[in-house]
Amino acid sequence: MIVNKNKYLIKSDINNSQLTRTIDGYNENKEKIISKVIHEKPLTIYLNNQEIVTLMSVGDHPKYLAIGYLLNQNMLKKNDLIKSINFEDDIDTIVIRTKRKTNYEKILNKKITTSGCAQGTVFGNIYNEIEKKKLSTKTKIKHEWIYELSKKINLTPSLYLEAGAVHGCVLCKNNNPLIYMEDVGRHNAVDKIAGYIYLNKIKTEDKIFYTTGRLTSEMVIKTVKMNIPILVSRSGFTSWGVELAKKTNLTLIGRAKGKRYAVLSGSKRIKY
Amino acid sequence: MIVNKNKYLIKSDINNSQLTRTIDGYNENKEKIISKVIHEKPLTIYLNNQEIVTLMSVGDHPKYLAIGYLLNQNMLKKNDLIKSINFEDDIDTIVIRTKRKTNYEKILNKKITTSGCAQGTVFGNIYNEIEKKKLSTKTKIKHEWIYELSKKINLTPSLYLEAGAVHGCVLCKNNNPLIYMEDVGRHNAVDKIAGYIYLNKIKTEDKIFYTTGRLTSEMVIKTVKMNIPILVSRSGFTSWGVELAKKTNLTLIGRAKGKRYAVLSGSKRIKY
Repeated sequence: MIVNKNKYLIKSDINNSQLTRTIDGYNENKEKIISKVIHEKPLTIYLNNQEIVTLMSVGDHPKYLAIGYLLNQNMLKKNDLIKSINFEDDIDTIVIRTKRKTNYEKILNKKITTSGCAQGTVFGNIYNEIEKKKLSTKTKIKHEWIYELSKKINLTPSLYLEAGAVHGCVLCKNNNPLIYMEDVGRHNAVDKIAGYIYLNKIKTEDKIFYTTGRLTSEMVIKTVKMNIPILVSRSGFTSWGVELAKKTNLTLIGRAKGKRYAVLSGSKRIKY
Repeated sequence: MIVNKNKYLIKSDINNSQLTRTIDGYNENKEKIISKVIHEKPLTIYLNNQEIVTLMSVGDHPKYLAIGYLLNQNMLKKNDLIKSINFEDDIDTIVIRTKRKTNYEKILNKKITTSGCAQGTVFGNIYNEIEKKKLSTKTKIKHEWIYELSKKINLTPSLYLEAGAVHGCVLCKNNNPLIYMEDVGRHNAVDKIAGYIYLNKIKTEDKIFYTTGRLTSEMVIKTVKMNIPILVSRSGFTSWGVELAKKTNLTLIGRAKGKRYAVLSGSKRIKY
């Protein structure tokens, strides 16, 4: 067995029995099997006295998920003073209280017209903000790190290997994966990382973001919002994702499998 | 080369150049490549005089997508008389007009609390309706059809094989795939099938539904709403998906790859 010696700052806890369920079934030979499947539960997020959203999530790290969600939706500002974060496990509710008075009634109404989007929910006004941003060209990625990161991440014990049906996102520095979050929706996995980064004041402009999911516009937007200049995926691209990456100077590396990959934006950051 | 002789009633048109874009990039050997990626565009749906949603979609079959979306959200009723369907290509908008006067202001507001969900958007009240439904046990699936369907579908020329980054859904009868729709979001692919079924009055209780996506609660809900008793996927399960399948008597076959699969609900419909 190959042991992954890499040390993560945080990752999903595969020994937490709350994250999966065992279900009886049958296999192709009509033999009884006990199958481990991923669990989903709701998390309702309040910002001060306003109910913002109910997310379906695997249920770990609700604090990071809620903070990351609010940040990525522009409802929490970088310099906001968070007075309290109260997670009420029995009612699947988390309440974030800030010093600043907040009211997102208008933005919540605007959301109606963009939700249902293939990429989860993103408020319309975020696109405008992102398009003006230019990521720094200083951080580079060595050609071989792309392989090394994929390999290390694939060998890490994960909910995916335990039960399938989850996406994973990983914040990496050089060829080392550091923060590995998983969830039923890839947007939740990203938001948990965004929440961790924010609460632990992690520097992002020297990092690489890895995802198992597709390189859609939503994934590009969230990476740019986190100020991370390089995004890697084993999956494919969408045209809007590539377009936004080019506008914001994000390096977009996709279809990274085995020794192969394609870079469709920001190839200058790759050192061969 | 193996030719798939199966005749589809309808499928995505891989020769439609509007569905993909070619983008210049580099491969792992620093060689220039021209990469085909999937295109995404918005589709804004109006029901009578009310703007309902803007979906991001690959852009084919807007009529089926819009009708299927409204049906699966309970905004269009089975016995509604559709007066007109007007697709305005230049402004990415489709307007469905019914004889019945509609007003979904209340339901649209309710959506706020469930969107952002990992499974796309589903209005809260649909869960209650689905839980009471019991699918007929008459339709069976032969053990070997599971392999045959997977193989036929995998060999069908598709947007997935052309450009990646899309999900596919297929309505099948016995071991024959009939309707094959693809989209960036799996929920759009299902909705396009639902719209086709509705407008062409296709019988559903003797059919099998195949999806490349995960067997989440959303996928189960939409299958049950379409009155299809068997759902097959190459991907994995979530606990809520299995729970809803059991309640509604849906046969749920997942992880169908090569000669393997797992059935976690409704195994009595499988004939060995």
